Amino acid sequence: MSLPRIAVDAMGGDDGVRTMVAGAAMAHERDSRIRLLLVGDAPRLEKALDRHPTLRGGVAEVLHADDVISGEEKPSQALRRAKSTSMGMAIHAVKDGSAGAAVSAGNTGALMAIAKLALRTMPGIDRPALAAILPTLQPSDVVMLDLGANTECDSRNLVQFSVMGACYARIVNNQQVPRVRLLNIGTEEIKGTEDLREAAAVLKDAAERLSMRFDGFTEADKICRGEMDVVVTDGFTGNVALKAVEGTARFVGDLLRRSFASSLRSKIGFLISRPATELLKHHLDPNNHNGALFLGLNGIVVKSHGSANALGVANAVGLTARLLEENLNERIAADLARLGGAETLRSPRKVAGEAAQ
Amino acid sequence: MSLPRIAVDAMGGDDGVRTMVAGAAMAHERDSRIRLLLVGDAPRLEKALDRHPTLRGGVAEVLHADDVISGEEKPSQALRRAKSTSMGMAIHAVKDGSAGAAVSAGNTGALMAIAKLALRTMPGIDRPALAAILPTLQPSDVVMLDLGANTECDSRNLVQFSVMGACYARIVNNQQVPRVRLLNIGTEEIKGTEDLREAAAVLKDAAERLSMRFDGFTEADKICRGEMDVVVTDGFTGNVALKAVEGTARFVGDLLRRSFASSLRSKIGFLISRPATELLKHHLDPNNHNGALFLGLNGIVVKSHGSANALGVANAVGLTARLLEENLNERIAADLARLGGAETLRSPRKVAGEAAQ
Repeated sequence: MSLPRIAVDAMGGDDGVRTMVAGAAMAHERDSRIRLLLVGDAPRLEKALDRHPTLRGGVAEVLHADDVISGEEKPSQALRRAKSTSMGMAIHAVKDGSAGAAVSAGNTGALMAIAKLALRTMPGIDRPALAAILPTLQPSDVVMLDLGANTECDSRNLVQFSVMGACYARIVNNQQVPRVRLLNIGTEEIKGTEDLREAAAVLKDAAERLSMRFDGFTEADKICRGEMDVVVTDGFTGNVALKAVEGTARFVGDLLRRSFASSLRSKIGFLISRPATELLKHHLDPNNHNGALFLGLNGIVVKSHGSANALGVANAVGLTARLLEENLNERIAADLARLGGAETLRSPRKVAGEAAQ
Repeated sequence: MSLPRIAVDAMGGDDGVRTMVAGAAMAHERDSRIRLLLVGDAPRLEKALDRHPTLRGGVAEVLHADDVISGEEKPSQALRRAKSTSMGMAIHAVKDGSAGAAVSAGNTGALMAIAKLALRTMPGIDRPALAAILPTLQPSDVVMLDLGANTECDSRNLVQFSVMGACYARIVNNQQVPRVRLLNIGTEEIKGTEDLREAAAVLKDAAERLSMRFDGFTEADKICRGEMDVVVTDGFTGNVALKAVEGTARFVGDLLRRSFASSLRSKIGFLISRPATELLKHHLDPNNHNGALFLGLNGIVVKSHGSANALGVANAVGLTARLLEENLNERIAADLARLGGAETLRSPRKVAGEAAQ
């Protein structure tokens, strides 16, 4: 059995075609059911394919794109060039059914804008969200969303993000009843904004029907301790939290390198304990946790990290294949139906607000 | 020349009287101008003072308090017991002029509530903020605020926080023209909320008069790189960012310990490179950057970390002494006046919003 074809924007990412094709080939070596649609400059793609004969013979098809969306391009500009760019054409391949999902390592804002316009938000979801996977002290990872798709979110959005995040965690963590928490500045029920408290009340009530466990609020210092599978927040806070985590991991790494270089004795110690620091590096390497996901669209769109190497790309493509295999979006739709329809998501305050408009 | 007396809530903090008094004694050994008002259970304080004879002879006075505010106590409850508790009495000593500043390692929410009610917000400031000092890759630290005093903030609050944070950084970093940034989810001018964009516009215009440099927005991964002296954000985001930083530093530390314990070879390497890891530990140890500060009150209130050891407490008391010596609040008042009064802080949107109420 083959999986639906995965469209890969082969021009995105810091290293472009070479890395994207190498990553796609690695993903196919790991899972032979994976078939690909490589979108980008055809001559360069053909050249890259020469280095990866396993992708020949129908495994990877090539779709030529004249143009590329740059890293600095504004989403509004990128939207206008959706039909001629590798990123836009990869997304449109999902829309017209020639691919089942798309992967890009390009400009995140542009990818979000193009995907949202082409694929549209799925029924029952008001706004899509960007989710990523972070390492924890336990063997399992933690899914965090939203990471910047929506600057401001209300309680409805937060509940929908929780449903989507739980479906995602069930697949990536193999956790049938994911533990979900809302990110807040304290764990007491009275903490935070009114939207957070409302979302918590809805989730507390609905968790059982959704086969997730809602454990209330968490603070940001607990995200990576392995005590939860899903952390839900608005896009502004999520983006800040994610970058604070990334920045601090890099900061501590830099300090460590500096400390180890501070004396000959430390250098020797460092060399001897190399396997330990390699283990640390492996655990923290974003390539091992690669693949942010736009949740809530009519189609699966995975964002590979711009600086991902071939292994990172292979992990993103492999993740995409699992999401296709496990029918992520069908699961989300089923859970939304179980939630009892959109009505239960409306708090009295929101309804009053809408009526007044 | 002596400094105004510093009231120390000797009952707060995880280790209580012993650590607080030991820290106060250490601070006085470093700076003999420091005089103290130790507030708490008198018999226990006298016993602790026996171990620190340098504090006798008028250096430290004892003010007996019958009661203590616990770590779990709600601010509303704590407020009712302000007159009989060590924390409340330390704050009230600032109010009635028997002390120039207060230090507590107790319940942050209670401290904020009591200090705000007793000391009131200073003229020109709408809301006080909680500021902390974080280490960076450079020799200088970075001041971050607000860290949780205000869940939601508008552009006026953010501008006022910037003014206060810059005054604080001038003292702690010895930096005459502090580099100030607003925390956002991107550095382009169009990023973030309307309040952030408004605050940026006001600061861009006013920075020169305030002898600060306003460098626009920063993302959370840059906070600790030493590229800025002050990072300003609302209390919700600041609390999440601070805890994400703390949690990740601990997370990486835990992984490191685990890696080093993974084999005999790694253990030997670790022992040899001990000086390096000690250097790292020293740099990250919160005791070396202790002393969060409530800015914007009619009086100086420093929050020492609950788990601080004697060195941490000494750093918090030493910081308090410097703030008194440098007349922090007079500097803030002068900068607020230079800003051109509160009127320039009112954006058209806010004025319209207020008029409509």
